[in-house]
Amino acid sequence: MRLTINKEEFLKGLVTAGHAIGAKSANPVLMTFKLEMTSRGLEITGSDNDITVFTLVPLAIGETEIIRNAASGAILLNARVLSELLKKIDSAEVTIEVVDGSVAKLSDGKSEFKLNCIDAAQYPDVVLEESENSFELSAKTLTELVDQTSFAAPIKSSRPVLTGIFLKAAGGRLTATASDSARLSRKCVDIPANIAFATNVPAKTLTTVVRMLEGYDKVRMSCFPDKTIFAFGSTLVSCSVLSGEYPINDHIIPTTFNYYLETNALELLSAIERIGVLNADRAPVVKLTMTRDRVEVSTRSDATGSGTECLENFQYTGERLEISFNSTFVADAVKAVRGQDVIISFLGEMKPFMVKNPKDDSIIEVVTPMRSR
Amino acid sequence: MRLTINKEEFLKGLVTAGHAIGAKSANPVLMTFKLEMTSRGLEITGSDNDITVFTLVPLAIGETEIIRNAASGAILLNARVLSELLKKIDSAEVTIEVVDGSVAKLSDGKSEFKLNCIDAAQYPDVVLEESENSFELSAKTLTELVDQTSFAAPIKSSRPVLTGIFLKAAGGRLTATASDSARLSRKCVDIPANIAFATNVPAKTLTTVVRMLEGYDKVRMSCFPDKTIFAFGSTLVSCSVLSGEYPINDHIIPTTFNYYLETNALELLSAIERIGVLNADRAPVVKLTMTRDRVEVSTRSDATGSGTECLENFQYTGERLEISFNSTFVADAVKAVRGQDVIISFLGEMKPFMVKNPKDDSIIEVVTPMRSR
Repeated sequence: MRLTINKEEFLKGLVTAGHAIGAKSANPVLMTFKLEMTSRGLEITGSDNDITVFTLVPLAIGETEIIRNAASGAILLNARVLSELLKKIDSAEVTIEVVDGSVAKLSDGKSEFKLNCIDAAQYPDVVLEESENSFELSAKTLTELVDQTSFAAPIKSSRPVLTGIFLKAAGGRLTATASDSARLSRKCVDIPANIAFATNVPAKTLTTVVRMLEGYDKVRMSCFPDKTIFAFGSTLVSCSVLSGEYPINDHIIPTTFNYYLETNALELLSAIERIGVLNADRAPVVKLTMTRDRVEVSTRSDATGSGTECLENFQYTGERLEISFNSTFVADAVKAVRGQDVIISFLGEMKPFMVKNPKDDSIIEVVTPMRSR
Repeated sequence: MRLTINKEEFLKGLVTAGHAIGAKSANPVLMTFKLEMTSRGLEITGSDNDITVFTLVPLAIGETEIIRNAASGAILLNARVLSELLKKIDSAEVTIEVVDGSVAKLSDGKSEFKLNCIDAAQYPDVVLEESENSFELSAKTLTELVDQTSFAAPIKSSRPVLTGIFLKAAGGRLTATASDSARLSRKCVDIPANIAFATNVPAKTLTTVVRMLEGYDKVRMSCFPDKTIFAFGSTLVSCSVLSGEYPINDHIIPTTFNYYLETNALELLSAIERIGVLNADRAPVVKLTMTRDRVEVSTRSDATGSGTECLENFQYTGERLEISFNSTFVADAVKAVRGQDVIISFLGEMKPFMVKNPKDDSIIEVVTPMRSR
């Protein structure tokens, strides 16, 4: 294997495939990039088993030659060392040449590195194809779907199935649900009517995918029983899915309500955040005390003291209601629905309540209250 | 105690005094601000015992009233809670009123906080006065003195005395020395001829002091046997000094040399950093191989491979010399002398060498080499 390659395009490919590579792995192969020179260009793969990114640096972009003097072959090179060296090299081109199976020479005319490498045969097999359940989404739509739900999935859980975003396609709608069982976030978007599947992809993986979408208009999604593949530009990302039944279903979403608070989202958020300063050291319990004339946000902490603030702009319908909640959950929910105003609908003091944007029906947030102190 | 105060000026005072307050302390009093309303204004003190910051928010700045409706008194308030609340409050003024010895009311018209507080009598006594060994420096000079030396002092050491910057004033010169015993950094500046003292102030404390100097032209320094006081604007900072004899003296600084390398500082730094990528996981040993015609920077790591780079712009005087060193130490030294070019003077393969800026005699860096591999 041998090639001389435009440094910037090479580095772009490494950054893309590098999204899949974790900080640590017990398997040294997963700390490497697989570089394979083929007739199409330089194929770069990075993986941590949960997510595999495959990208192609082509031989030329338009009239501009990107790769020259190439001889086919494949090799595994330490991902951190290769990325760091490329970032610190000044020249416009670098040459990689595999000297024997265990050493690759990287040079830019001024400096020369002899890098230890691993036989490409040791790299895990990755099959990247499209399924029948394949459809195109705008990158913006997928990004919103993930960003507006992922925060509700716990990073770690005794029930690993909850760390995913549950994606269900049916009847022309793709519904994303994330929940840690005390709160739930759900967003729907339109997709082609013939697509039907249900899959549970780790929220962390999907967050990585949407970070990679910046600068792309479209993304193609393909669902398989054991993985979901996203394709954009010359990049393919394969995500392992979580096995086991997703335990959150439509029944936990309240549908009838007795109390409604409509208020300015920013005003509510500022009040919650100010009041929340008092309990930064413990569970951030904030209480709403609502009547038609007055809506009060308050908290009390044995350690630091108490605080009270009244909302200025609101409309409240219903009898007097006191309800306490985890202020982080409500702040997250209010931010996620992305409205100038927000409507919170309550059924009763100890019943889950719903946060919505009055101008956007595609997203709902459900939060379980806490016992008042 | 009672006052209504301009929020921005209050917050500025809290940020200044907050520089002294650590993230954790076993003593809850050291997690508070002491607020004292006097005839001069609001006096704010923060301390972690090693460093105490005292600052004054005056009654008025020029024609602008800063504090009104004041009644004298003192109180201790949780530093984190008070700072965070002030940052999140929107209004231009806040009112603080001590309700009884244990609760202070903070209000801005919209929100009201009842904050737990501690009796001011529990705050440690701080005596802030000037000594005979008092003189004025430009803030820029003190900042350079600290920034160009502090990196050489270890953050922790089995010999705590080494964590300081040793400051010696004599004959119109103030000399700052920092060393972890494998490297040394020394900077001299001019001061009034009548000043004489020797003191060892923790490098961490001095770094905090110079961070606070931004926006000030002048700083006044006063030395006492047990502390050093810095005064600027309406702020005083008292720094505890390290006891015990400072073990680094002039004898370890080499004075005769056999080999001289003069090169472009940026070129040498880039080469060292590129080559250093290969040993990020272990001791960063880099080797210089120098002859009159060729200067090579190289490294070898069992884990990642080897790398070699030649300098393009250099002048070398002396026989062929190979010398290995901790690349971080040399990179730090080259950055600290702040020259476009750098001169490194060597006595022999295993002798400490000196890094200097050919255009600035006020700073020298000494590095002990490592055994070549």
